[in-house]
This record gives sequence, structure tokens and C-alpha cells, in this order.
Amino acid sequence: MSDGTDWLGGANPADWQLPKGFRFAAVRAGVKPSATKLDLSLVVSDRPASAAGMFTTNKVCAAPVQSCRARLPSERIRGIVINSGNANACTGDQGRADAEAMAARLAGHLKVEPSDVLVASTGVIGRPMPMGNVLAGIDAAFPRLSAESAGLADAAIGILTTDTKVKVRSRTVRLAGGEVTVLGFCKGAAMIGPNMATMLAFLLTDAEVDAARLRPNLIRAVDESFHSVSVEGHTSTNDTVLLLASGASGVRITAADEPAFSAALTATAQELARAIVEDAEGVTHVMAIEVGGTRTDAEARLVAKTVAESALVKTAVFGHDPNWGRICSAAGYAGIDFREEDLSLTVNGTLLYDRGRPTAFDAAAESARMKASREIRIQLAFTLGSAGQPGPGSCRFWSTDLSFDYVRLNADYTT
Amino acid sequence: MSDGTDWLGGANPADWQLPKGFRFAAVRAGVKPSATKLDLSLVVSDRPASAAGMFTTNKVCAAPVQSCRARLPSERIRGIVINSGNANACTGDQGRADAEAMAARLAGHLKVEPSDVLVASTGVIGRPMPMGNVLAGIDAAFPRLSAESAGLADAAIGILTTDTKVKVRSRTVRLAGGEVTVLGFCKGAAMIGPNMATMLAFLLTDAEVDAARLRPNLIRAVDESFHSVSVEGHTSTNDTVLLLASGASGVRITAADEPAFSAALTATAQELARAIVEDAEGVTHVMAIEVGGTRTDAEARLVAKTVAESALVKTAVFGHDPNWGRICSAAGYAGIDFREEDLSLTVNGTLLYDRGRPTAFDAAAESARMKASREIRIQLAFTLGSAGQPGPGSCRFWSTDLSFDYVRLNADYTT
Repeated sequence: MSDGTDWLGGANPADWQLPKGFRFAAVRAGVKPSATKLDLSLVVSDRPASAAGMFTTNKVCAAPVQSCRARLPSERIRGIVINSGNANACTGDQGRADAEAMAARLAGHLKVEPSDVLVASTGVIGRPMPMGNVLAGIDAAFPRLSAESAGLADAAIGILTTDTKVKVRSRTVRLAGGEVTVLGFCKGAAMIGPNMATMLAFLLTDAEVDAARLRPNLIRAVDESFHSVSVEGHTSTNDTVLLLASGASGVRITAADEPAFSAALTATAQELARAIVEDAEGVTHVMAIEVGGTRTDAEARLVAKTVAESALVKTAVFGHDPNWGRICSAAGYAGIDFREEDLSLTVNGTLLYDRGRPTAFDAAAESARMKASREIRIQLAFTLGSAGQPGPGSCRFWSTDLSFDYVRLNADYTT
Repeated sequence: MSDGTDWLGGANPADWQLPKGFRFAAVRAGVKPSATKLDLSLVVSDRPASAAGMFTTNKVCAAPVQSCRARLPSERIRGIVINSGNANACTGDQGRADAEAMAARLAGHLKVEPSDVLVASTGVIGRPMPMGNVLAGIDAAFPRLSAESAGLADAAIGILTTDTKVKVRSRTVRLAGGEVTVLGFCKGAAMIGPNMATMLAFLLTDAEVDAARLRPNLIRAVDESFHSVSVEGHTSTNDTVLLLASGASGVRITAADEPAFSAALTATAQELARAIVEDAEGVTHVMAIEVGGTRTDAEARLVAKTVAESALVKTAVFGHDPNWGRICSAAGYAGIDFREEDLSLTVNGTLLYDRGRPTAFDAAAESARMKASREIRIQLAFTLGSAGQPGPGSCRFWSTDLSFDYVRLNADYTT
């Protein structure tokens, strides 16, 4: 189902490890204006999957988010309908009815209850869903469902909006009871006109896990991945992360196995989150921000997020400016209590600010090193533990620079 | 003392109303690299002035801020030393000693205590103050002090960094006891390389007011002015607002006069804050954001600030995109509780979103209207009072768009 674009971006679907019990498909339903683009994807679990979800905290949230929230957690999810091109947000009662109708259509094919099917949407907000096209798309996609990687590739392409390539990551983990596979695919937080886009991610495993046990593992994975990336800090109306466990591997996650399973889930989610930042609009450098030595992880996260979202830090990184003043002053207004002497800053391995004092460094050389690095590593080390020692808090966070292209893409107005 | 630049930008110093009892001067001290630029200003009160101040909340704050905080409130301030070109921030004990030495030098000329003189700095952070030049500058400026508007013009130019013109506003208010004058001058929050700049504002009045009464009036004025503007939300290490009341008019502010005095102070501060936004780097449109109908003013402010600082809203305004989705979704993650049906949005007088539903509007016409307006007026009307009525909360806020020039100016790295 290629439209001529290299959506795989060098990825080889043969390398993906597919969890057992899932099938995938996508079609060109005609939700996106371009008739050549896949825009409706299906994920089906051959047996009832336990499922958990995390969603946008925006008070203005889309109909499919409301629909998923009402269904989860669940022990009997059989499918997900995902469309791109229309977010079904700010669409009122009609939007809610449309989301339900999408779930009901796939449920009809699967001969299950509508409450056993989840829906996710991304794209333009405030426009009615073209339901004729959407429902026909579900009908057309259903017979194409495949457990092969080609089907997954289509589904992963079908959810994209302004992303330039698919984002699929997977791994297999060996547990006492046998091998289980964790796979995720997602689309990015790239935000262009005419309206905003969204982060959607789908995590699938063939492990057997109760929905009640899925949720804490999902929360941990999301905190350390999708909650630790920022492009411009604008929370979408549609952000959705779904986790389905089919149990098709026959391997039940025991208490002893849970740390290994959780680690696999978190690592997969981190790779996906990192892929979103890498593919963000107009990005020329990725900022990898590491904060340590605070009193708590929450303090470290506040600092990391504030640095990550500072327009002055982001433009400095775009300009290869080793501007420690902007980074330290962003930390200073993050809302945590510290003295200048409690903070040291290292950029790309060079100490620029040492316990409250600027160091003597070669600014031109540091700038050249920044220019040569796709990733800019920013480490803020605090001494907020007892007796002037580092505290136990830490956080890793990823963000992007702020480039001309970011402004161009987001200012591009097309009626 | 002109350096050839039209710093007045069309303003006529003869129009300024000067409060009695103050004198002004500025010189080229050699703090800025350019020898042609005024960079050291003095303000002197001929009699002990009552004074109050408000300062950056950044945990990384400059030595002059620490110095002012230790002195205020005071009933006996005689002068202010202000330099541009060096922020004296992140400079440790030496920086604190330097700030004290600056105050002591002017105090020596005035034959008063060092604690009767305030200091403010703006410019590059993390570099030692060139104290030889600074102290010689104070000596050179002192004999030049003048109560005329030409002296004020020099002082107002001498505090500028990346601003393109002076920002001076004044008004006279008639009270029961006679006429008093309020004057303010400030420099902007423009933030360019190599390090960050600062907002400094000086409010002067010849009214007679106790320092204890000055402070609540200053807080009110700042909340409705400098706290209600944002360029990119980065809190500087040096932000300072000082208010001095010389009493030289002989008019004491009574309880009955206080509302009129407070209104004059607030109006002057609002004009200055608005001038900062107008002169922000790379600005092509000013956003005037009005939020109403929330439960409290604090809720309205949260929404206004979130909209004002959203990169997606700012780029949409730069691109003349009547993108109600970005504005409403920014409101949605501001952290206040509401339902979609509680929100309506009007841009430049056109209703785009009516109690949770997009309206049918002519997007091309709205875009053309945005393009033609320097100011984009964004009104968010909530119904968060009892029984679905508007609540009592409101806020007015000013911000800028996010343009190519903003990125260019802030990414411009010069070693």
C-alpha cells in the first residue's frame, strides 16, 4: 500500500518482533485530503486482551479520548480503530456518537460488543468526521488484517500526520515461563497547521497480564518516556497511549517476572518517545537533559521540563551557543528552592558552571562541538541532599531546538 | 550625549512631565563594548525618598537585586546607580562587593550612607563588573545631574540593552491637596545573545507617601502591568521595579487620594509594560489577551499566561492563522477546571468558538484582518459563575508573536 513516500525511513519491517495474537491493516479511507495517504488503521487482538490507557490532561479533550476513558481498564479488548486526518475534537455530541459508531463498526465485524473496541483519532480539530468514508474504510480494512510485519507497517503509516517516518520499536524478553514480546508504534507531537496534531502510541504485548497489573507498569513506562519529552509543551486534545496484552504467548507475568517485563515496556516506550523528538518539526538538534542531585524526582522533572521548554535555551541550542546563563536561569525559575552554589552545569561533557560560578572554557570550541552534534547533552547537577551532597532525585528528558523551520511550519497558514 | 541613534523614536522629551525633586544623568562608562553607548545612569532624589521594590523570583538572582532587597522598604533613599552591559549576575561574593561599591561611590558624592543608594544592573551575566570604568563613570555622571528632561532622556537611554528606543511615560494627577506627578522609565525584556537581558523599571513620584503605603500600590501596579506581559516566559536573573516617592510636591497622599494615586501609578506602569512588548525582539504582532468569566482573577491569569506563552499560538499569530483550536487547547491545559461548553473565543471581534462549538466563519477574511492588524485581540469568555453565568474573574495580558526574527536574534551566537 505504498504511496511513493519512504515512510519506513530505513527501518526494515523484517527486523520487528511481533507479539503473538495481533493483526494489523490500514487503508486510504479518505479522511485526509490526499487520496494517496493511508489514514485508517486497525489493530485486532484475536483473543480478549487486557488493556490500560493514559490520556491527555487537557480539559478540551476529543471524543475518542472520552470513549476510551469510559472503557478502560478492561479485560476484553478486541480491537482499536485509529484514524488520522481528523481529530474528532471539539465536535460535541455528534463527535461522541461518531466515535461510538466507529467502535461499533469494527465490533460488528468481530462479532463482539462495541465496548470491546477502542478508538483513537488525530488530525484537524473542530471538523465533523467524514463518517461515510470512515465506516467504509473500516469495512475495507477488516479483510486485509494480517499478522505479518507488512500489515503492521501499513497500520503504523496510517496513523501518521506530519511525521516523516514510521515509529515502531519492539523487543523480546525471556522470563521464567518463556519468552514474551513487547511492541509499540506511535506518531509524533509535530504540530502544524491548520490545527494541532497529537501524540498517539500503541503498546502491544503477548504476555498474559491482568488489566489491574498493566496500569502501574504503563504509568511507569509513560512517566519515563512520553511524559519526559517536549517539543513545545502544548498538551494536545487527543494524546493517547494504549497498552494491550493479548496473553497469546501463554506466558503469564508473575510477580518475579514483573520487573523485567516492566523494564521492557519502559525501554520500548522510551525508544518511541525519543523517535518522536527526533522527528519533530524543524528539529536540527535534540536536547538530552539530565537533572540529578535534587531532593526528589519530581523536583528534577520540574527543572528538566523548564529547561526543555525555554525558548531562550532552545534558540541558543539552534544557534550552537554554549549559553550556560540561559540554562541556569531557566533552572532558577523552575519553582524549586536552591542556591546558586547548589548547581553545576555540564554541556556535551564540558563543565560550564561549577557550583554557582562560571568556568573558564573555550566558547568557540564548545560552539563548534555543539554544531557537530545532533544530540546536545545538558546535565544539571544539584547538591540538594543533606550536608551539601547530591540529593536522590533525578530525571532524563528530551526536547528539541527552536529553529527557523519550526516557525515556518507552524506559521504556515493555508485556508 | 547622542551616539547618532534615534533612541527617542519619535518621543519628545518636552512632553514628559517630570516629578519634582529628582535629577538624572548618564555617561559612557565603558561597560558596554561600544564606546559610543551610554551605559551608566544615575537617578538622585534631592531629599530622602520613601521607596519600595519588586524583584525577580528567579533563584539565581543578581548581586544588585540582593542589594536592593536588603535595603527596601526604606524612607531615606537618595539615589539609584544603574548600569547596562553587565548584569552582575552569577558573580558570587565579588559581585556582591561590586554592587555595594557602586552604591557607596554615589553615596560618597551625596554624603549619605551606602544603604541610602540602590543599584540595578542589566546585560551579560557571569562576567565580572569592570569596576574601574563603573566607578569612574559614577564620578563623571554625578556633576552632570540635571532636573531637566534632557537629563532624563540620557538616563533612559543609558539603561537600554537590545531595546530600540527609550520607554518613558508620565502623567499628572490632581488630588485634594494639590497636583502630583508620576513618571516611569524602563527597559525591555528583549533577550538576545550572548546572554539574557532583563526588565528594569523605575517609577518616580513627587507625592509624599510612606514606604509602607507605597508597597501595596506598587504590587497592584506591577500585577496589572509588568506581571501581565510575556515575551517568552523566561524569568530573568535581574528583573527589578523600583518606586521612589520624593515628597517634593508637598502633597501627601491621604486615604481619600490613594485610589487616584494608585490608578495613576498603574496606568503609567501599564503603558511602560505595553511599550516593552511593542519593542520586543522580532515582534510583528502584539497579542492583547483578555480572559473573563472565570471563578477568580487568578484563574483568568493562568489561562491568559498559558495562551500568551504557547509557541503554537504565537506562531499562528505570526502566520495570520485564525487558529481557534490552538488557543482553546492552550486554555484547556492551563490548569483550571472547565468544560468545553464553558468557553467562547473571539479574535479581532469575530466569534470563532461559541460555548464549545466552532462557528462558521470566513477563515480567509479573518486571516486578512489579522495580517492588517498590528494588535491581535484575543478574548476568552468563560461561564464559570453560578448557574452557567460568567464568573467574576478577569485578566488582561499582552504578549508577542513568534517570528523568524525572534529565532534569528536569539540564535545569533557571537564569541
